[in-house]
Amino acid sequence: MPRYALQISYDGTNYHGWQVQPNAITVQEVLEKKLGQFLGDKPVKIVGCGRTDTGVHARHFLCHFDWENDIPNDTWFRLNVMLPKDIAVQGQWKMDEEWSSRFSALERCYHYHVHLLKNPFQENYSTRVQPDLDFHKMNEAALLLLKYDEFTSFARQHADTLNDFCDVRKAEWIQKGPTEWYFEIRANRFLRNMVRAIVGTLLEVGQGKISKQEFEEIIKSKNRSNAGTSAPAHGLYLQEIIYDKNDFLGRE
Amino acid sequence: MPRYALQISYDGTNYHGWQVQPNAITVQEVLEKKLGQFLGDKPVKIVGCGRTDTGVHARHFLCHFDWENDIPNDTWFRLNVMLPKDIAVQGQWKMDEEWSSRFSALERCYHYHVHLLKNPFQENYSTRVQPDLDFHKMNEAALLLLKYDEFTSFARQHADTLNDFCDVRKAEWIQKGPTEWYFEIRANRFLRNMVRAIVGTLLEVGQGKISKQEFEEIIKSKNRSNAGTSAPAHGLYLQEIIYDKNDFLGRE
Repeated sequence: MPRYALQISYDGTNYHGWQVQPNAITVQEVLEKKLGQFLGDKPVKIVGCGRTDTGVHARHFLCHFDWENDIPNDTWFRLNVMLPKDIAVQGQWKMDEEWSSRFSALERCYHYHVHLLKNPFQENYSTRVQPDLDFHKMNEAALLLLKYDEFTSFARQHADTLNDFCDVRKAEWIQKGPTEWYFEIRANRFLRNMVRAIVGTLLEVGQGKISKQEFEEIIKSKNRSNAGTSAPAHGLYLQEIIYDKNDFLGRE
Repeated sequence: MPRYALQISYDGTNYHGWQVQPNAITVQEVLEKKLGQFLGDKPVKIVGCGRTDTGVHARHFLCHFDWENDIPNDTWFRLNVMLPKDIAVQGQWKMDEEWSSRFSALERCYHYHVHLLKNPFQENYSTRVQPDLDFHKMNEAALLLLKYDEFTSFARQHADTLNDFCDVRKAEWIQKGPTEWYFEIRANRFLRNMVRAIVGTLLEVGQGKISKQEFEEIIKSKNRSNAGTSAPAHGLYLQEIIYDKNDFLGRE
């Protein structure tokens, strides 16, 4: 059966995350429903590159599905018209049958946005933090994340992952404007809730509540109860998913 | 009585514009209510630098009010906490009694944002337009606005202005990103609905429906029915209000 990849983005404000669940609307559910309608009122199962939690946004999210026949080249475009305005499709590709949006991904990048002063255009899309945070200290602590590869201190307790190894390649606070910063973190994979728990703990470093040494002790302790509270969902964006370029070469 | 200026910004999505009106929630109404509460449950009348229509946003809006006594220096900050998240206050200044947020303003700047591809983060804050618009032609037509000073062709028919003279100093489409543009227009004053009617008509120029010459004829006709339909409110921002710097010099 032909396998198709879709590239999408979504504003997560009104969704209970990506993954289908009972009694709550999710992005996967809306996408499967509209795609099924378009392909002739048949059920279709879509596999995402990962999960996002309730309220988390995605600027660049890949997913795939198998279909018995070739689909029209403009499926992605027609789907866009059918979907609500908070979900958009950027393109479609016919892939190798072994390709997986989830397992073929080489790297994931998340951004967490914060702003220092009340701003009516950012309150739903960034987290307001106290203006005197010490971002230099937060960056010193963030660098420690690159020294370790086990982050159970920042994972939801009953995470259903096979192993907890994460290769963190970048972890840095970057200034975007006079009163705006974002945290960029790149890794081959992330544990559930990991980015928000790391950001929440780094914010406590910036407030002077936790030292750089204590931050390192928290990582080493492998105990979730030592880390800070998770930062709110609405500041988090799945920013980029990276695959081997050859996976997409010459495909349409 | 001391006169105070407040600088605010607001996301206009959930408001019927700035100005108080019966049976509809407005920014002025919310601000007057919260400020009155803060100043001891007394009614207060706030004068804005202009009006914005239903759904229009403001990044930089000044308003003023008179109060019998000096107000606390942190009034603007405390007000911020009381206001909903779609209205923010950036500061307060004690002004000369003759100063007016409306009549002392020397220049107003509006931005109108458009995007060419569906984007879940822009659908409420920018207008999606067809991707093959000819922005070069739109800019050639926009330059014609600088030659004229009467714009009744772009004004709501029963505009209650004393005269219709507007000194337009800039009118230009600027590319912000690969699929994002905005129109910047600066003038001493604007007629009601003028920016949205100009943008709607320029979009028809970009679509090839109206030539540059026809655009000039529309301006000269002074007849609203010749211009295009108004562009939607949610793409429009009151971006900046300019006063004489000396008005604020040394004031707190």
